[in-house]
Amino acid sequence: MYTDLPEAQLRSHLSTQADPADFDEFWAGTLAETRRHPLAVTVQRVDAGISTLDVFDVTFAGYVGQPIKAWLRVPAGATGPLPTIVQFHGYGRGRGQAFENLLWASAGYAHFDMDLRGQGWGGSTGDTPDEGGSGPQAPGFLTRGIESKENYYYRRLYTDAVRAVEAARSLDLVDADRVGVMGTSQGGGIALAVAGLVPDIAAVVARVPFLCDFARASVITDAMPYRELGVYLATNRPRTAAVHDVLSYFDGVNFAKRARAPLTVTAALMDPICPPSTVFGAFNNYAGPKEITVWPYNGHEGGAWEDDALALRAFGSALA
Amino acid sequence: MYTDLPEAQLRSHLSTQADPADFDEFWAGTLAETRRHPLAVTVQRVDAGISTLDVFDVTFAGYVGQPIKAWLRVPAGATGPLPTIVQFHGYGRGRGQAFENLLWASAGYAHFDMDLRGQGWGGSTGDTPDEGGSGPQAPGFLTRGIESKENYYYRRLYTDAVRAVEAARSLDLVDADRVGVMGTSQGGGIALAVAGLVPDIAAVVARVPFLCDFARASVITDAMPYRELGVYLATNRPRTAAVHDVLSYFDGVNFAKRARAPLTVTAALMDPICPPSTVFGAFNNYAGPKEITVWPYNGHEGGAWEDDALALRAFGSALA
Amino acid sequence: MYTDLPEAQLRSHLSTQADPADFDEFWAGTLAETRRHPLAVTVQRVDAGISTLDVFDVTFAGYVGQPIKAWLRVPAGATGPLPTIVQFHGYGRGRGQAFENLLWASAGYAHFDMDLRGQGWGGSTGDTPDEGGSGPQAPGFLTRGIESKENYYYRRLYTDAVRAVEAARSLDLVDADRVGVMGTSQGGGIALAVAGLVPDIAAVVARVPFLCDFARASVITDAMPYRELGVYLATNRPRTAAVHDVLSYFDGVNFAKRARAPLTVTAALMDPICPPSTVFGAFNNYAGPKEITVWPYNGHEGGAWEDDALALRAFGSALA
Amino acid sequence: MYTDLPEAQLRSHLSTQADPADFDEFWAGTLAETRRHPLAVTVQRVDAGISTLDVFDVTFAGYVGQPIKAWLRVPAGATGPLPTIVQFHGYGRGRGQAFENLLWASAGYAHFDMDLRGQGWGGSTGDTPDEGGSGPQAPGFLTRGIESKENYYYRRLYTDAVRAVEAARSLDLVDADRVGVMGTSQGGGIALAVAGLVPDIAAVVARVPFLCDFARASVITDAMPYRELGVYLATNRPRTAAVHDVLSYFDGVNFAKRARAPLTVTAALMDPICPPSTVFGAFNNYAGPKEITVWPYNGHEGGAWEDDALALRAFGSALA
Amino acid sequence: MYTDLPEAQLRSHLSTQADPADFDEFWAGTLAETRRHPLAVTVQRVDAGISTLDVFDVTFAGYVGQPIKAWLRVPAGATGPLPTIVQFHGYGRGRGQAFENLLWASAGYAHFDMDLRGQGWGGSTGDTPDEGGSGPQAPGFLTRGIESKENYYYRRLYTDAVRAVEAARSLDLVDADRVGVMGTSQGGGIALAVAGLVPDIAAVVARVPFLCDFARASVITDAMPYRELGVYLATNRPRTAAVHDVLSYFDGVNFAKRARAPLTVTAALMDPICPPSTVFGAFNNYAGPKEITVWPYNGHEGGAWEDDALALRAFGSALA
Amino acid sequence: MYTDLPEAQLRSHLSTQADPADFDEFWAGTLAETRRHPLAVTVQRVDAGISTLDVFDVTFAGYVGQPIKAWLRVPAGATGPLPTIVQFHGYGRGRGQAFENLLWASAGYAHFDMDLRGQGWGGSTGDTPDEGGSGPQAPGFLTRGIESKENYYYRRLYTDAVRAVEAARSLDLVDADRVGVMGTSQGGGIALAVAGLVPDIAAVVARVPFLCDFARASVITDAMPYRELGVYLATNRPRTAAVHDVLSYFDGVNFAKRARAPLTVTAALMDPICPPSTVFGAFNNYAGPKEITVWPYNGHEGGAWEDDALALRAFGSALA
Repeated sequence: MYTDLPEAQLRSHLSTQADPADFDEFWAGTLAETRRHPLAVTVQRVDAGISTLDVFDVTFAGYVGQPIKAWLRVPAGATGPLPTIVQFHGYGRGRGQAFENLLWASAGYAHFDMDLRGQGWGGSTGDTPDEGGSGPQAPGFLTRGIESKENYYYRRLYTDAVRAVEAARSLDLVDADRVGVMGTSQGGGIALAVAGLVPDIAAVVARVPFLCDFARASVITDAMPYRELGVYLATNRPRTAAVHDVLSYFDGVNFAKRARAPLTVTAALMDPICPPSTVFGAFNNYAGPKEITVWPYNGHEGGAWEDDALALRAFGSALA
Repeated sequence: MYTDLPEAQLRSHLSTQADPADFDEFWAGTLAETRRHPLAVTVQRVDAGISTLDVFDVTFAGYVGQPIKAWLRVPAGATGPLPTIVQFHGYGRGRGQAFENLLWASAGYAHFDMDLRGQGWGGSTGDTPDEGGSGPQAPGFLTRGIESKENYYYRRLYTDAVRAVEAARSLDLVDADRVGVMGTSQGGGIALAVAGLVPDIAAVVARVPFLCDFARASVITDAMPYRELGVYLATNRPRTAAVHDVLSYFDGVNFAKRARAPLTVTAALMDPICPPSTVFGAFNNYAGPKEITVWPYNGHEGGAWEDDALALRAFGSALA
Repeated sequence: MYTDLPEAQLRSHLSTQADPADFDEFWAGTLAETRRHPLAVTVQRVDAGISTLDVFDVTFAGYVGQPIKAWLRVPAGATGPLPTIVQFHGYGRGRGQAFENLLWASAGYAHFDMDLRGQGWGGSTGDTPDEGGSGPQAPGFLTRGIESKENYYYRRLYTDAVRAVEAARSLDLVDADRVGVMGTSQGGGIALAVAGLVPDIAAVVARVPFLCDFARASVITDAMPYRELGVYLATNRPRTAAVHDVLSYFDGVNFAKRARAPLTVTAALMDPICPPSTVFGAFNNYAGPKEITVWPYNGHEGGAWEDDALALRAFGSALA
Repeated sequence: MYTDLPEAQLRSHLSTQADPADFDEFWAGTLAETRRHPLAVTVQRVDAGISTLDVFDVTFAGYVGQPIKAWLRVPAGATGPLPTIVQFHGYGRGRGQAFENLLWASAGYAHFDMDLRGQGWGGSTGDTPDEGGSGPQAPGFLTRGIESKENYYYRRLYTDAVRAVEAARSLDLVDADRVGVMGTSQGGGIALAVAGLVPDIAAVVARVPFLCDFARASVITDAMPYRELGVYLATNRPRTAAVHDVLSYFDGVNFAKRARAPLTVTAALMDPICPPSTVFGAFNNYAGPKEITVWPYNGHEGGAWEDDALALRAFGSALA
Repeated sequence: MYTDLPEAQLRSHLSTQADPADFDEFWAGTLAETRRHPLAVTVQRVDAGISTLDVFDVTFAGYVGQPIKAWLRVPAGATGPLPTIVQFHGYGRGRGQAFENLLWASAGYAHFDMDLRGQGWGGSTGDTPDEGGSGPQAPGFLTRGIESKENYYYRRLYTDAVRAVEAARSLDLVDADRVGVMGTSQGGGIALAVAGLVPDIAAVVARVPFLCDFARASVITDAMPYRELGVYLATNRPRTAAVHDVLSYFDGVNFAKRARAPLTVTAALMDPICPPSTVFGAFNNYAGPKEITVWPYNGHEGGAWEDDALALRAFGSALA
Repeated sequence: MYTDLPEAQLRSHLSTQADPADFDEFWAGTLAETRRHPLAVTVQRVDAGISTLDVFDVTFAGYVGQPIKAWLRVPAGATGPLPTIVQFHGYGRGRGQAFENLLWASAGYAHFDMDLRGQGWGGSTGDTPDEGGSGPQAPGFLTRGIESKENYYYRRLYTDAVRAVEAARSLDLVDADRVGVMGTSQGGGIALAVAGLVPDIAAVVARVPFLCDFARASVITDAMPYRELGVYLATNRPRTAAVHDVLSYFDGVNFAKRARAPLTVTAALMDPICPPSTVFGAFNNYAGPKEITVWPYNGHEGGAWEDDALALRAFGSALA
């Protein structure tokens, strides 16, 4: 059953999420601080048992220089520069194995598959620790460091993602003018953040994106991981306003206003995890060219292989 | 938590499933009837948007000549004959899209990816109807045609699978001496059936296989789809013995006794869908060389990418 | 809790379900094709162990002449012609046993209790197979044959139901001018279809009817069996419009517009299986005399014995 | 899945439930106290709208003379004396409507259908209050009056049931030598109690009986209503031994040892509400002729219509 | 997620609950009848193992003189007269142990902690029986005696509560001019009733109160114990209007109109047990000075320790 | 229902958990490293609104000197030295508010109520951050830092707890010879660890303790938080042995062997969160004087107020 508004109302739904006054300043400062550290990209060929692709183990310097892992996959023997897709994973997932996730390189792209710090339990493993403690928090990542915007987990993760684009662009195999970003769920939210922080991305694909309109999401669904916010706030009532202030610096609705790259988004009307009004909250604010596909009978799996086909078409057009 | 016996007891667990006296006769007759129909293999190149692979749309004559679809994927430009993996899907899944399921061909195999008649709702679509009605049945495929062994759905499906191996072997791209079969869950059960019915298969990989020891499975788990049997029998009590008689012709435990190809099996100790004792019931009966990997903390997802790695090693060794 | 709109809104709720242009042509053709087959009614007295009733095992020719079973129950020694109730069962139920379902004949009616092809797992057994295969479908009957209106399961079942009325009327025990139809849930949906297809039915009782306003039902509840549509469409997204086109030929909302017999309907405000707005969608479109009873604190059990009492009153008045 | 021991172990399972020393004295005193009150049976013909049966509204004096309602149904025009079935209902159910529950009279029996004091919410209504308060208790009837055996609810209810047999036997329509008792679930437990308290009952049918081996039942299932005991004891820990002492006066295991009438019992291996070992605990102790039917794939619905057929056979044989 | 209306709508939400014409007469008569019995207060010092408090076991005459238990706790050595809090517990809870519930006396109040007749399973024990039987009812207390307003359980319980205030005021340790009442959930509902029935209460604290706007509550949530009403009415449909008439004499919405003491209320937007619109239904009707605190991310736990702090502030101000 | 072995088997149940060879060395090193930092205890009187107690806000140096918060509560005006209870909280809970948790000081003890680093969402707030990052982990604390015994979260937390005892003993209000430790669930596991690490504790109370026999717990229950281990290992299969090696340094079974203080333990037979066999695994290994109370009808709430009474008796005897 529908988990949210009907499609007609979604089309005109406006999020109430407002910008904090120093949003741009906060992010400019954050990125500047990290960019003081060299990118330090290393690339190591691995034997993934895949004859049709070359796979490389990549390390680069993310937030304040902390080392972040990634896979780079390209068609076997490719020398570049190739159109490139930088991918961010869903909540709980790491970069996984070298021989997983073959579609994008098999379709002819350089595929830069970034690991997510501290994640790697939800089906695919991770290889990157999250350096940084936390005040009292609920289980999970949504309240890790929620005591301040400076300590918040997603400050580190979004910065890693911006650096992943920079690391990809530094490689000979990558055509720096033809780099798109993509992700599903949390990965879609990160892609939107990168779109708002990196001005010259060529294309953005955000599938059933997470991390959009936290204030609404946290009261219209009981599904994890948005529910982590409610778990925390049910006990930490006096911090409610402070928490929403921190979150406003990381909300896809606010990044959307700053983005200019062509955007492809999907939303699913039966999705309890990333309810479609939170997706439309970002989409309707998005400042660049954009299209959204709505799946009426899907939950958080969204369009699945049809979302893959949409992404191939979007990148085929934008990175051609 | 464990859903079944601890591993030490599983190692020595013997299924009580017995052979019906005319088991071999039934299957010999079934295959002979179908083999009176020509294989009628057609192969059509499709544009799957994958530059590293060639993908073909295949049709062949399955049970009593009914047309069955498949994908054939090979490394781009391959001319064969290649070592080949024939794959059967899990319950509810069809062959899906041409650009899905890229691992096996990317690893250098000809990958023959058979569609499942009447299935195609559980995440991947199907293109093959199931011709044949049914007496009163519960929702699903496990009681479709349960009124007799002749009308039972899996008679048709197992026969399709035997014919898929024959169809694959008829192709120039395929090295007929190096054909293995593989599947997960229902696909693993089908692989075991093929192993019992086709004497010269080179390797069998059955991951958390379904369709083994129906009598035990139907009373030790409430998870679908084994539960379909209980749903049917809760109302159709007088047919209990007759149903178990029908099922005995389709039980992986009985096929295992007749198989000779090297077998790789996995089982998961927290799997409620295909409880590990039902898997060991088949494995401990298996007449050929065999190895089993037990995943202690997994449910029906089993080893996932580690099961892929196991399969790549098994086929790498057996089809070399 | 309420599962749908409050009663005041239900009273004026209009379904958006529209007629396909060839709705009447489709059904005229369907019935004509079947009527080319003789009714072939056979009636066999059985010993049901009931001293107050006579019970007969009936067979008649349903869709394209396929044999359909029924029970006929009448007060012991009755010679007719009697006022008659033709009953259709809920989803999953067959005609059951000869000694079940005694109310209607005990109240003085001839009770023609039709079996449902292929059903018979949900508490009462069935004796009638469903001849006819299916394209890929989800478990259950709601997507069996959904690939086209010609192959759809409910085309066969509704035709059986029309023929059941014709078979009943052919019997000496039955007064052909005093035949009512009745059903609960799926049976209620079938009764509405018969009311739209058979012009001279004397009374219709549809209790918490199923099979009404599929488009709305499939998005406002997660309960089976409407949920079968969502299960199918979640994977088969490209078929969404085609599926709704097929369903429009079988929607109680459309049959209601064509019916003229006095109608008694019930709806329950806490019913998640047949949400009341789908019932009102049909009721508010119904073209004949009609009354509806709303049960505020009931789920899909509806009025239960009070629905029986309503039906006895309705038939007592209409078939007197 | 099985909710309890496998059948082979059930066959030899012995309950640990012991008799309290003054069990017989307690019940002799209880019945003597009530029998000081006249039976005060009144019988009033009602118009139930059923032409094949005559239905009467009966009132008799139950526990300490409190008035208890019942229905009496007989074949229309019967004058008796008839073989008679006294029926007790399941937990939560009252005697319901005059036109419900037609099987037994339709099969030729006088059917004495006793109301249950204070019950009447679970699908059928009741017309009899429960006079008598309670100490602190959990919701439901299993801990009502649990503070002492004298105040316990089932003391009143079992006494009502004994008086129901006496009331039935006082009627001209009833053949006092051919009276059987029957019930499902709670009704089955009451039937066992009556069998232990009334020496000359002609037959007992107890279907998936409740109220047997409370000590075991309360720790092997979480299903209501046995769970009511755990709900109460989780807070009232210091009363654990006292509660089990009270319950021992009402346990079907103890009544079974005192019964002599031919017994027909059913048990279901997937029943979480009345787990089969609790049924076998009573059955294996039963002192009279006995047979048990085990349904392997059923839950608490047990054999349903097959249990009806069993009962008709049992009464047909014992009351002939 | 929110379980009810958003806060802005709650602020202006008006319950449709109306007064029965003889509401005041009913309660005047009820209290007068009970006040014919002497209060019969007894106070017995107990050794609770608490060195900082003195604890007394209190008995007083409640409804029609039936004995009701309570604890009285005061700072060790206090001689009074003290400002006093009379507390009523939540559904299922009794007064518990002498050494529980220490906050209020530790903060300097006389704490009169009333037991609830017949309750005492939900975490804290009770010592007071409920004398009085019931017609057919669903498990629990919400339909006990629902056959008439005279027999309804809450008539007895509310009367006990009024008498508890009178009993407290009769004690030397208590300053009769500085008595407040307090409760959470059911206790909050009782506090509202006392506020409507006792004109000179000094302060009322009702936290996430239960027993408000039964008509709305019973259709907007499935959570127990409001759901008990639906369980009863699902079978007892013909009694629906009569039940709502009985309940109108016990509805916090109606007591609120008659209350004058300063009120502190809390409501939680994610509360399924006492949905916030039912709380606002009473609050918006409340005739005295009032304030409400809304917890956006809490369920039925409400503000927990923050509700304690609110109560301490409210009593500190009103009872100073 | 019972969630684990019956009591008779629990009494003799032996855990298979073995000591790592360098267990003592690891802990000696860990504590030595921390003890290089001064205790740095600060004590600040706060106004908690409690007239019968004095409450102090305490800070001390925990693991590697990181500041840890605590409350100290004593009877108002006490000057000491008092017998003292150091308490550790359950999973998810922080030290909460100054006016909570009044029993122990009200009973005459100095009550040292330690905050738990990084926790504070499950009903009571926390004021202490957890400094230290983590490799990939599942949500929650059970796999935080699981990549090595050096980085594991519980290394920090257990060390804080040892330091809490040292900090308490440093205070004038505390009699250093009469210090007991106590906790429920996680707090009970911490108490056992402290008992194994601090030789001269006077008494230990561990109620339904967590953190015992991880290897068994992680396969016999699906309840959080033990389930966190399975969540992590379901994806991180290759780390299974390494994880169990890390956990062996933190297992209550191993601490129990080293403890000498009198122990009071409780276990509940219906506890899915800390199954009783894991509790008995530690208890049966415990090297000091010990007693265990088993609650047959309780879940993880255990004995609740009866566990409080047990603790008061145990401390009353051991700290007298």
